[in-house]
Amino acid sequence: MKTATVIGGGTGSFIVLSGLKKYDINLGVIVSMMDSGGSTGRLRDQLGVLPPGDLRQCLVALSDKSYLWRKLFLYRFQKGDLKGHNFGNIFLSTLEKVTTNYEEVIKTAAFVLKLKGPVIPVTFHKTNLCAKYESGKIIKGEGKIDENIKEASRIKCAFLSPLVLANKRAVKRIKKTDYLIVGPGDLYTSIIPVLLVKGIKKAIMSSKLKIIYIMNLMTKTGQTTGYTALDHVKDLTLYLGRKPDFIIINNGQIKKSILNWYSKNNEKPVKDNINDDDFKGKIIRSDLVDSNIFKKPKADKLIRSILRHDSKKLAKDIFNLIK
Amino acid sequence: MKTATVIGGGTGSFIVLSGLKKYDINLGVIVSMMDSGGSTGRLRDQLGVLPPGDLRQCLVALSDKSYLWRKLFLYRFQKGDLKGHNFGNIFLSTLEKVTTNYEEVIKTAAFVLKLKGPVIPVTFHKTNLCAKYESGKIIKGEGKIDENIKEASRIKCAFLSPLVLANKRAVKRIKKTDYLIVGPGDLYTSIIPVLLVKGIKKAIMSSKLKIIYIMNLMTKTGQTTGYTALDHVKDLTLYLGRKPDFIIINNGQIKKSILNWYSKNNEKPVKDNINDDDFKGKIIRSDLVDSNIFKKPKADKLIRSILRHDSKKLAKDIFNLIK
Repeated sequence: MKTATVIGGGTGSFIVLSGLKKYDINLGVIVSMMDSGGSTGRLRDQLGVLPPGDLRQCLVALSDKSYLWRKLFLYRFQKGDLKGHNFGNIFLSTLEKVTTNYEEVIKTAAFVLKLKGPVIPVTFHKTNLCAKYESGKIIKGEGKIDENIKEASRIKCAFLSPLVLANKRAVKRIKKTDYLIVGPGDLYTSIIPVLLVKGIKKAIMSSKLKIIYIMNLMTKTGQTTGYTALDHVKDLTLYLGRKPDFIIINNGQIKKSILNWYSKNNEKPVKDNINDDDFKGKIIRSDLVDSNIFKKPKADKLIRSILRHDSKKLAKDIFNLIK
Repeated sequence: MKTATVIGGGTGSFIVLSGLKKYDINLGVIVSMMDSGGSTGRLRDQLGVLPPGDLRQCLVALSDKSYLWRKLFLYRFQKGDLKGHNFGNIFLSTLEKVTTNYEEVIKTAAFVLKLKGPVIPVTFHKTNLCAKYESGKIIKGEGKIDENIKEASRIKCAFLSPLVLANKRAVKRIKKTDYLIVGPGDLYTSIIPVLLVKGIKKAIMSSKLKIIYIMNLMTKTGQTTGYTALDHVKDLTLYLGRKPDFIIINNGQIKKSILNWYSKNNEKPVKDNINDDDFKGKIIRSDLVDSNIFKKPKADKLIRSILRHDSKKLAKDIFNLIK
């Protein structure tokens, strides 16, 4: 059985993991610990805990528990003192308060949610994602970078402050994984943060693993405005240390009503300008658009995409590369 | 094996259940659902859920899980949006939001906490405890009655608004129980609320069960100010429908520093004026004072007693009656 490891956090990783967990793969995920927006950001600031948001999504995605349990963990309060918080975030934060180390938090959550594969925080150290723009401006905090939607200048580089060491289990996982699955997800706030942690890039570069990159459907304002597929690959390659071996890219049509919604923020479908001969790796093009439109709950103050990859179709494409 | 059922909620029930669960008894608890103070009150008001506070304490008391799990459920947040809330309260409230009926809430919580015996909400209907004082004043809400510490007038009667039907499982439990364990706990805000639910008093009166009443150590301001042991028994008898068969009453000394703390609110040790010959039932007198002084966490805004029954000693006395 092949070993595959997703890196990231957020909705993109949720979709990949939910689809892939049904296949016969040794599946795991290395999760970004730099999330600082919304409920997660408030819990970080107010309780001094590690960010639970991305972890929660990955835990639920890999859970083999009943629908009730997954619903419980994703439940977001609409009113009162708890407004905007997710139960899963509160659970992880409380566990952190009553245990002596974060390994125990993960172990307990894994037990409760009956995980089908390991959920590995990329680091146990507190840190902040920073983005330096071509204009010279620096923004600190994943949440603030995410909210910086009016930014005209491109991100020149991302870094962590402070630079923190990787969780040993994350490095071990990379060393024994056959496939690293990167994306979909916000390039600078979900994917790259994982790669910035000390020890991760080195582990990837020294491993024989194959990298599968799933291209985003849409550009993201303030992060990848105007980015083509090649722009995504170029930036990612810098932080990965080498090019991906496979790229999975959507060629399905996106509804006009959805395109109109995105155009408010100057967000557009990622233009596929990859030349097969130049790329050298393998490119898989297929219709990956989920026909559902996603609406976020009112109490969720973050800007979230309404378009998603189709979890089943995407998992099938990935599995065809792995099997 | 004998069947024993505690009625109440709050700290008193927690102490009885924690001690008794180590003995070979078919143990269960019927829990008050009228709690409306502190974290519970806010969750009731803001989320429209049933009060989780008393349930939480009983669930943890009967849990056979590791210390970590009990600590998790009792954890109270000290800062931020969640300040003053218990994790257990949030867990029960969220479960109520994602399930279709409260039976499922209890079933899930029982599974998570690996209960040694059933925790049975006295009712699944929303209601409020009301107290009518001899002065004619009526106060609605358990929390408000509890806070009414300056009250000079005695409580004439307590009632529910609206009057609600008992959970069928509570009635069934009473019918098959050999011993009903009443107290310790606030007479009017923890014990009597259970007895006010329609069907409970009738079930007790038509059953052959024996009633064991554990007398409080101290009077409670605004509720039982100036009450002797006989006053307690008299009020309780009214709501039980008959006299208790056994009374367990403390004869141990209480430290002067503790008495001073209580005297600020004119609270005194309950005076044992029960005449053995008059009472007809059996009276057990022993030193039941816990030598620890309990301090509440800062974020807990409720008035709580600092003196407790010794859980082990009390359980031993109760078991000697039951075995």
